Amino acid sequence: MKQNRRDFLRIAGLAAVGAGLAIGCGTRKRQEVPEGEEPLSDEPVQQPAGPRRMKLSFYPYELQLKHTFTVSSYSRTTTPGVQVEIAYQGFTGYGEASMPPYLGQSVESVTAFLQQVDLEQFADPFCLEDILTYVDSLSPGDTAAKAAVDIALHDLVGKMLGAPWYRIWGYDPAKAPSTTFTIGIDTPEVMKEKTLECAGQFNILKVKLGTDRDKEIIETIRSVTDLPIAVDVNQGWGDRFRALDMIYWLKEHGVVMVEQPLAISRYDDQAWLFERSPLPLFADESVQRLPDVPRMHGLFSGINIKLMKCTGLREAHRMVELARSLGMKVMLGCMTETSCAVSAAAQLSPAVDFADLDGNLLISNDLFRGVAVVDGRLALPDLPGIGLVKC
Amino acid sequence: MKQNRRDFLRIAGLAAVGAGLAIGCGTRKRQEVPEGEEPLSDEPVQQPAGPRRMKLSFYPYELQLKHTFTVSSYSRTTTPGVQVEIAYQGFTGYGEASMPPYLGQSVESVTAFLQQVDLEQFADPFCLEDILTYVDSLSPGDTAAKAAVDIALHDLVGKMLGAPWYRIWGYDPAKAPSTTFTIGIDTPEVMKEKTLECAGQFNILKVKLGTDRDKEIIETIRSVTDLPIAVDVNQGWGDRFRALDMIYWLKEHGVVMVEQPLAISRYDDQAWLFERSPLPLFADESVQRLPDVPRMHGLFSGINIKLMKCTGLREAHRMVELARSLGMKVMLGCMTETSCAVSAAAQLSPAVDFADLDGNLLISNDLFRGVAVVDGRLALPDLPGIGLVKC
Repeated sequence: MKQNRRDFLRIAGLAAVGAGLAIGCGTRKRQEVPEGEEPLSDEPVQQPAGPRRMKLSFYPYELQLKHTFTVSSYSRTTTPGVQVEIAYQGFTGYGEASMPPYLGQSVESVTAFLQQVDLEQFADPFCLEDILTYVDSLSPGDTAAKAAVDIALHDLVGKMLGAPWYRIWGYDPAKAPSTTFTIGIDTPEVMKEKTLECAGQFNILKVKLGTDRDKEIIETIRSVTDLPIAVDVNQGWGDRFRALDMIYWLKEHGVVMVEQPLAISRYDDQAWLFERSPLPLFADESVQRLPDVPRMHGLFSGINIKLMKCTGLREAHRMVELARSLGMKVMLGCMTETSCAVSAAAQLSPAVDFADLDGNLLISNDLFRGVAVVDGRLALPDLPGIGLVKC
Repeated sequence: MKQNRRDFLRIAGLAAVGAGLAIGCGTRKRQEVPEGEEPLSDEPVQQPAGPRRMKLSFYPYELQLKHTFTVSSYSRTTTPGVQVEIAYQGFTGYGEASMPPYLGQSVESVTAFLQQVDLEQFADPFCLEDILTYVDSLSPGDTAAKAAVDIALHDLVGKMLGAPWYRIWGYDPAKAPSTTFTIGIDTPEVMKEKTLECAGQFNILKVKLGTDRDKEIIETIRSVTDLPIAVDVNQGWGDRFRALDMIYWLKEHGVVMVEQPLAISRYDDQAWLFERSPLPLFADESVQRLPDVPRMHGLFSGINIKLMKCTGLREAHRMVELARSLGMKVMLGCMTETSCAVSAAAQLSPAVDFADLDGNLLISNDLFRGVAVVDGRLALPDLPGIGLVKC
């Protein structure tokens, strides 16, 4: 009986133990015996439902693209991913690592990383600070694998609190913005067709520039719609004067923001451009994690935050808050991924200026229902955690 | 029936409404009729327990000091305060404004401010971002009155989530630091007696310097204890050379940190001192709210955050995160106040380097039990919200 009571107290993190003091996050293994308590017997003991410690599991899940994805260097019909689950006390938190080739992470690297992660040492999933600091300490990179653990933990803790994260963070879901939808570069005819198709469903389009036919691309889209356009240059404008000329031209053509106009190493040119740009400039390749944010101050109007690059929601939320504190704008990006990672990112969306959260719309084998797009705007589910229903 | 159902949906913020979409924070008044719904009849309708909208109430509560408080300019045996309650759906959140004379706020100014606050316009207490932005917009100052509303809202929301805020923020309560306890300036005999009395209960002492007998004060304390000492200079060292000399001397005498050595206007001297100081330097008078934090970077090692100066927990949490993001240290301070405001601040304590949370220990008519001091360390209650039990 004594042991059962002790287990109950350790597990019942949400319940107030009289007016007792808080139990620490403790990394005590369950075999250890606290001072003043009797050693556990070896006999099996009746346990409450669910494991007594967090249990992490994961499996590769290849995403099927609705349309072949082509950029100058390659073309693909699938994209690799790893799904993660953390079980605790009858709750299951879902997480995901998505690994576009340019991130330099793979099913193998993510799996190898996750195999190292020992969550059983932690008594309480709520101790996100300790747990995620530990996870981050396991290697210098592996940001997508870390994000998968972070997302699953947030989903778990949100479910235990019975609230979605946008509520826990104090955001108004009615402030979730429209998401951009990317029009792929193709022949003018195909682009026009695609644009017309999207114009009815989205309020803002996105297009990747930095090519030798940037103006033609914009004119093609403009020939069929007046919707605002966000452009991502992917460091593609080699010269600050060309960049400034283009930005003025784009502004006249209804473009509302520009991502990463110049190469990440060109700080002086970027500062020069930022001072003069009539459109807000967002850092993408230039910013990955929290310490990068203050460095972008004075170079860009805002930052693009992606969970797979910044290790997940906890750091992403800090980046949002830090950017806001510094008077900077924020946008959210994603990879091609299921509604799991996209719905996680969407929890932050009421706090941002632009959302580019269309990754789940590009795949044909989604595992979840989560954030939806209604009249072009992100519609956050009124469900706890990151708001998923498994399909 | 229809109305009851609508009320239920609006109220049952924590419950997942099927897989429905989130309800916004809406500032719609309850008299307004949403599109497509029938107007409300004037007949009274059966309601769930508790008001349908947040109800704010408040009353002055004068704090009785255990010992007369004397500084050079005045002496007092009481300190003014205002207690705040926010009731919603059978939950009550407690908040407090404490107004030491130097803050320039009074029972009258706090009461006048609180009378303006209309929380009934908000459908959902969870929308802290919108609600507290509105509260902050009501006047440029009134930081203590704003903090009272913020604390009560946090207590309310934490109770609705069934979790203390240190857990919601992901902190480990076992990491809560020792609190400093202030030894008042007095005759050497009285100071020795006081120090001996405190040395058994606290792990770190605090003393206010910036007098013409600073060394004598430290030597007096040192003659009876080896405990580490934190010093608060209150801008009292007029000269950077004197300051640096004193800091070296203090370090040799077991002082571990120095608060606000120079006048707030002396940025150049402060930068010079910070570059050379062998002890961490904390900004107190130099920092009030979030935008002050980045300005302290390069001038101080860290910042002292006080709820009554920064408008409450939401901004305080942001200041902690921002300071951490910038690689700065953090300490928490308080006023002479009940366990309400002190326990609120203590929720952040696992994330800080120093805590100076002794304000509730100085009064004889506390209204609550909350955070305790056990073996000199802050012991956070395992109770939801800010962890209070009304006495």
